[in-house]
Amino acid sequence: MPEVIYLNGQFVEPENAVISIHDRGFLFGDAVYEAMRSYDGRLWAMQRHLQRLRRSLHEIDMGYVDVNIIAEVIERAYQRSELPDASVYLQITRGVQPRRHAYTQDLVPTVLVTVRDITPMLARINRDGESVMTAPDVRWKRCDIKSTNLLPNILAHTAAIDGGAHEAVLYDAEGYVTEAASMAVFCVEEGCVLTTPLGPEILPSITRQFVVEIAADEGIPLREERVSLERFRNASEVMLGSTSHEVCPVTRVDGRPVGDGTAGPVTRRLMAGFKRRVAAGDDAVRE
Amino acid sequence: MPEVIYLNGQFVEPENAVISIHDRGFLFGDAVYEAMRSYDGRLWAMQRHLQRLRRSLHEIDMGYVDVNIIAEVIERAYQRSELPDASVYLQITRGVQPRRHAYTQDLVPTVLVTVRDITPMLARINRDGESVMTAPDVRWKRCDIKSTNLLPNILAHTAAIDGGAHEAVLYDAEGYVTEAASMAVFCVEEGCVLTTPLGPEILPSITRQFVVEIAADEGIPLREERVSLERFRNASEVMLGSTSHEVCPVTRVDGRPVGDGTAGPVTRRLMAGFKRRVAAGDDAVRE
Repeated sequence: MPEVIYLNGQFVEPENAVISIHDRGFLFGDAVYEAMRSYDGRLWAMQRHLQRLRRSLHEIDMGYVDVNIIAEVIERAYQRSELPDASVYLQITRGVQPRRHAYTQDLVPTVLVTVRDITPMLARINRDGESVMTAPDVRWKRCDIKSTNLLPNILAHTAAIDGGAHEAVLYDAEGYVTEAASMAVFCVEEGCVLTTPLGPEILPSITRQFVVEIAADEGIPLREERVSLERFRNASEVMLGSTSHEVCPVTRVDGRPVGDGTAGPVTRRLMAGFKRRVAAGDDAVRE
Repeated sequence: MPEVIYLNGQFVEPENAVISIHDRGFLFGDAVYEAMRSYDGRLWAMQRHLQRLRRSLHEIDMGYVDVNIIAEVIERAYQRSELPDASVYLQITRGVQPRRHAYTQDLVPTVLVTVRDITPMLARINRDGESVMTAPDVRWKRCDIKSTNLLPNILAHTAAIDGGAHEAVLYDAEGYVTEAASMAVFCVEEGCVLTTPLGPEILPSITRQFVVEIAADEGIPLREERVSLERFRNASEVMLGSTSHEVCPVTRVDGRPVGDGTAGPVTRRLMAGFKRRVAAGDDAVRE
């Protein structure tokens, strides 16, 4: 089955999957999104995605959107796809209005859900070890909001691809690593996993949340701590984390090998822990 | 005549003015724009707008777009509108591609031009004196690129409107004024106009460029200098500048009157100078 597309109350064919040029998502990036997936016929970590969506909507002054209804739409679109392993994309914009910076509260939000096979996306991931390039983080100061204002992300990501790497790892003005252009990032120093503390500088990544929990469960030391670029480059292990990548080893940073150039022991433990977590279907939100 | 809409090679009716959900402008804010105007049947300051557009396109790795062709399209759309005083909007996105962060160079850009009557927009401006509210600048570090990643701008602007003001004036982490959410800003201290130096923190505003030239022509002292919020709040005069606002007095900052609460002498000279400039039709780019 080709892509399933739900748009504003109905399922549509690709040629009808169009939005107005006056949609504020198009004109201003006045929109938030979530990218989800399924494993073997089941949507994964939905409560966590919905919780984050609720927060993003609230932060852009769209707390009036009923996320329970959105959840039903996502489930219907996913069922319709009949795909065991799907990539599910949701975008909600503030709606359609003749172009004007100021918005009003009476707009009808645009709701888009697409479901497609995740296999081609997964095929681009090298699970033996990816390369990353470091780049300055020039994004806005509210990266905790999952908005479609992604121009700096896609520029950094594409520059990394063009440079022969898989992803860009961003560092702030003080030289501390924040996160990757479209993923969370982790490194290991003396056996301890290090990752940027939650805050306005990074997205509250769901895979990051799982990694923190798995590390706690398995007795792997983990600290939420800002890491300088120098420490990051000298880490014994580096990992990327995202819904599609799960936990993925990074074996080259800026062209230089990480550790011995293969996935390290802590990375392998977290990768295995993540797989067990998926197999158990345990995606309940913990307190 | 209702709005004239040009989209990807043709003029379209409003109901056909739609773009694909896979347009990168919609998914990522992967787009740049210009907002222009005409006076009495003539497009204004076109060379300056096109020069800035060329720069924006280059900075987002779309330098391959032929801006001369875009200029012709703008002219055709404007002529078609038959509006003496029009607001002309141009947006160029990287094009349509199944959602993926990395872009390729082979995409066909989406080109949108809309032309509408500027009168309703002008009617919202109080030329006797506007109120502004100050707010933190949380935008990205490349505000010199006129991109559609405008979520922080529209949030700050709407919060100012909701607070009874007309516009938000933004200040950076060090407490220096940068610019307004959708306009340039100026203040006056001991007879000297002060405005933020050009750099990645602000848009190279065309009205700002005119103000700098008019001040030089008329012997009004002007310094490009960062101004702290405290100095800004105590300035004897404050102005906003934009294509629609031209030079517009600000008579209240955060609820407190500026100077004696009316447009000051320097503001009045710059307003008059701007009007003369428009009347002369002098919009050639100076070296």
